[in-house]
Amino acid sequence: MKATQFFVSTLKEAPADAEIVSHKLMMRAGMIKRLGAGIYNYMPMGLRVIRKVEAIIREEMNAAGAVECLMPVIQPAELWQETGRFDKMGPELLRVKDRHGRDFIVQPTSEEVITDIARQELRSYRQLPKNFYHIQTKFRDERRPRFGLMRGREFTMKDAYSFDRDVDAAGRSYDNMYAAYCRIFDRFGLAYRAVAADTGAIGGDRSHEFQVIADTGEDAIIYCPTSDYAANIELAEALAPQGGRAAASLPLTKTPTPGKSTCADVAELLGLPLTQTVKSLVLATDETDKDGTIVKSQVWLLLVRGDHELNEVKAGKLEGLKGGFRFATVAEIEDHFGCKPGYLGPIGLTAGVKHPVKIIADRTVAHMADFVCGANEADFHLTGVNWGRDLPEPDLVADIRNVVAGDASPDGKGVLAIQRGIEVGHVFYLGTKYSAAMNATFLDETGKPKLMEMGCYGIGVTRILGAAIEQNHDARGIIWPDAIAPFTVVICPIGADRSEDVKAAADKLYGELKALGVDVLLDDRGERPGAMFADWELIGVPHRVVLGDRGLKEGQVEYQGRRDEAATKVAVADVLSFLKQKLA
Amino acid sequence: MKATQFFVSTLKEAPADAEIVSHKLMMRAGMIKRLGAGIYNYMPMGLRVIRKVEAIIREEMNAAGAVECLMPVIQPAELWQETGRFDKMGPELLRVKDRHGRDFIVQPTSEEVITDIARQELRSYRQLPKNFYHIQTKFRDERRPRFGLMRGREFTMKDAYSFDRDVDAAGRSYDNMYAAYCRIFDRFGLAYRAVAADTGAIGGDRSHEFQVIADTGEDAIIYCPTSDYAANIELAEALAPQGGRAAASLPLTKTPTPGKSTCADVAELLGLPLTQTVKSLVLATDETDKDGTIVKSQVWLLLVRGDHELNEVKAGKLEGLKGGFRFATVAEIEDHFGCKPGYLGPIGLTAGVKHPVKIIADRTVAHMADFVCGANEADFHLTGVNWGRDLPEPDLVADIRNVVAGDASPDGKGVLAIQRGIEVGHVFYLGTKYSAAMNATFLDETGKPKLMEMGCYGIGVTRILGAAIEQNHDARGIIWPDAIAPFTVVICPIGADRSEDVKAAADKLYGELKALGVDVLLDDRGERPGAMFADWELIGVPHRVVLGDRGLKEGQVEYQGRRDEAATKVAVADVLSFLKQKLA
Repeated sequence: MKATQFFVSTLKEAPADAEIVSHKLMMRAGMIKRLGAGIYNYMPMGLRVIRKVEAIIREEMNAAGAVECLMPVIQPAELWQETGRFDKMGPELLRVKDRHGRDFIVQPTSEEVITDIARQELRSYRQLPKNFYHIQTKFRDERRPRFGLMRGREFTMKDAYSFDRDVDAAGRSYDNMYAAYCRIFDRFGLAYRAVAADTGAIGGDRSHEFQVIADTGEDAIIYCPTSDYAANIELAEALAPQGGRAAASLPLTKTPTPGKSTCADVAELLGLPLTQTVKSLVLATDETDKDGTIVKSQVWLLLVRGDHELNEVKAGKLEGLKGGFRFATVAEIEDHFGCKPGYLGPIGLTAGVKHPVKIIADRTVAHMADFVCGANEADFHLTGVNWGRDLPEPDLVADIRNVVAGDASPDGKGVLAIQRGIEVGHVFYLGTKYSAAMNATFLDETGKPKLMEMGCYGIGVTRILGAAIEQNHDARGIIWPDAIAPFTVVICPIGADRSEDVKAAADKLYGELKALGVDVLLDDRGERPGAMFADWELIGVPHRVVLGDRGLKEGQVEYQGRRDEAATKVAVADVLSFLKQKLA
Repeated sequence: MKATQFFVSTLKEAPADAEIVSHKLMMRAGMIKRLGAGIYNYMPMGLRVIRKVEAIIREEMNAAGAVECLMPVIQPAELWQETGRFDKMGPELLRVKDRHGRDFIVQPTSEEVITDIARQELRSYRQLPKNFYHIQTKFRDERRPRFGLMRGREFTMKDAYSFDRDVDAAGRSYDNMYAAYCRIFDRFGLAYRAVAADTGAIGGDRSHEFQVIADTGEDAIIYCPTSDYAANIELAEALAPQGGRAAASLPLTKTPTPGKSTCADVAELLGLPLTQTVKSLVLATDETDKDGTIVKSQVWLLLVRGDHELNEVKAGKLEGLKGGFRFATVAEIEDHFGCKPGYLGPIGLTAGVKHPVKIIADRTVAHMADFVCGANEADFHLTGVNWGRDLPEPDLVADIRNVVAGDASPDGKGVLAIQRGIEVGHVFYLGTKYSAAMNATFLDETGKPKLMEMGCYGIGVTRILGAAIEQNHDARGIIWPDAIAPFTVVICPIGADRSEDVKAAADKLYGELKALGVDVLLDDRGERPGAMFADWELIGVPHRVVLGDRGLKEGQVEYQGRRDEAATKVAVADVLSFLKQKLA
């Protein structure tokens, strides 16, 4: 490609609404152009990256035996009503009426449509397993779209759906996709982790997020540097502390802590480590009648160590809480604890009183001795609190906190570390959630109808661009991995308008690289060297060859990799083999 | 590709709602699957054709210097309000509100968005010409979607938009696209014609439809078999008959024609050729005040020969009618002609009467002598009517009829013929229609802002599939041209489950063809020969190789082209070179 036949459009400054580096750089590099909130034009430079991402996905999906199809953007509401998602999904689901007043949606995913296809097309166990995918425009009407392609409204997603005869076969389909995703992300040339994720109501252990590592990532990734353990923070298990609980050594003491309503403040006031304090969190669960009216509520006290954080996903799996919970109101707290929030604790809440509170202690808290907690009296805390001696053992001990760096790895093979990531892919075992809702059955070997076991597998195609840039950039701009760069090599001739030699040498190298199948761009715009270099460093082309009159007279050109500190002189005669080696 | 790793799903019968052959065959061949009215899933077999069509378009667009981008499906209403199309377009434009109640549309085309991009990005004459295109999902909420992909609601279109500094440059961009379209349609392997089309209010002669020839086509294509003239019926000019008008030879006679209100009936009753009769069509134009109230109407009598048809597009370009016209009401007709429709004529409507009627005669009618027309009296016609003698010359003589086969070609190089076509592409010079509405200017050499001259160029990607099938099918199914077939070659082994030789030979040929880059499918489903052949003939794979035990023992396989009457025996040793020749 020659630059004058393409479209290069860079900006010195990013628009004010671009908050994160990938958004700023994509705007400045002319890769995307805002059309509306969360809606972007993909400009030629950005589209080239998308096409390369799509091509890698397509090749690996096909190699894994998945079959590509294309499901519509605008889908009839009926199928979404069959699964209940038409009503259950909030305003993120963009709903539209056609000229006849019929309801449609703009697809955010395609579980319903693919299950409708499967229940018509996959009639016998002989046709299973089957995995269909498509790469298609999606729309999610985010309340607050931001961060460019990271949280847009219209985006491109690859979504695949597997259909299997039983749970074992579905597991094999899942493993197959997991392996394909690893190959895909390897080929992108991005640092990533496959991270075990929560499976929610589906259950089982088959849910993995593919996270691109980036300091700016929204998600916390938990991993063990000395094993292959990796999970997201919702799922990562915090093991119980080893050994027995220490014996009580301090007397139970009520201590004034006026105005100190946080564990940190209390620890500081008392000169104790934060790890000696216990945080009280009050939840409530409601029983409703068939009209949805609340007929009975139960209050729960959850205890985590002062430096720990409650993990709501873990809490939501516990008996009593798994039907859904909410944080208690101040009135409920005062009614149950006789005290305002900030000074709550587990002592004096024994069962049998008017409003019994159920106490759930995190494993770490249950292991503590001589700890500090609220006294259920404003401006007072208790120190030297000990289970068994000062209060009964908790109703339930469970893992209800987020892990922290330094926790033991659940696989017993080291200690956990935390890094930030950007979720760009997800593989998920769906079980019969959709096939049951839509009665998608096949006939098994005995001729009996059986629900298909499903899995779904998504990759945020356009989000990959943002994630790749968050991971790979410097002060000068984007640094694309070779595999998904808009161009692999850029040739920058200096003064080609004045020097026939430069022009001829640039054209020759361009022709040779094209003949080798290299995705090369010749910058024939006639820009000054500084502007030209700045453009390609901003755009992030990984390999640059500069040809100038002086160098050519010495039989040399200059090569600079996008991450290189300085240029390397290469003999004209060697430049092709040199580049071949760099691109290998 | 092996069939078991792909998805082959054929039907014996087409669904009842499939009316035309392409729709029936695509459904039966498992290429598309209906999701809703005018909304289809593209199944794997159909998607392969789409991808090949897209790839050809992309290659030729790029080669022609156009640059690919991707504009969103969901577009903010604001831009569409700038051009007025948000209000002007009828219910075909699918409108949608987001969660904040803001108006959006689902794009039917992208003139507004690309013009918005151009007015921001193309600031100088140095950046022109520029041509942007995208291949993207479109939606048109057709009142009555039908005919499968031929008149669907959601479809894929390639739309390109050129931006130029002046009319001459825009002409070159137009010619460039016209040439690219010819290469694209040549590569598809379809019989087509580029047909001059009406330019409407834009004017000029730069509008061509690319029509795929098919007997079942909706459009009439006018062409001259002995020259390169081709136009659609709206545009094709009917020349004035040669030579002078014949002299009057019959007396004007009023003849009873009770109940005979059509030219055909009158000609039959009187034993005269239909070409001797004249048809009267009454139009009206309205003048309105600023509130849209009709303040004055004018009635027009348009005369065409009894065997000819009025061309409303041509009529709509005439002085007095070009502001818009309608057919007159019966009341208006009786008021102006003193007679009910069916017996109207141009005699006795002289100016100066209470309601003057303006008379427009088609060129052919103006050339007629001794003709027959209505007497403006129920159940009576006049014969032997002659211009000048029996009535004044018409107010206007113009080409207002559709051409018919046998008319002289407007280029003077033969006589016209008519064939049917399916419009799948359109190149169109837009002038400054959109750039003026959206103030899309660039700075010219003198630094002055100037409106960009635009052109737009569409190809109905998914419609190509329907058109290709309408043109290429037989009783057994589809006959794809090689370039856009879902697979180019299918290998059908017979009894591979019983014969290791058959299986080995099939695998070997499959591997060899793949190594050559041939898009080959190996049917390893284990179907019986009859069912297997029927599937591939229905699906329309152009080249088939059959391997059987008996043939292999004689060192032979069977080749059959999809249009061949019978199979050809080919020596196993020669099959590769034989196929190479067939695919060349």
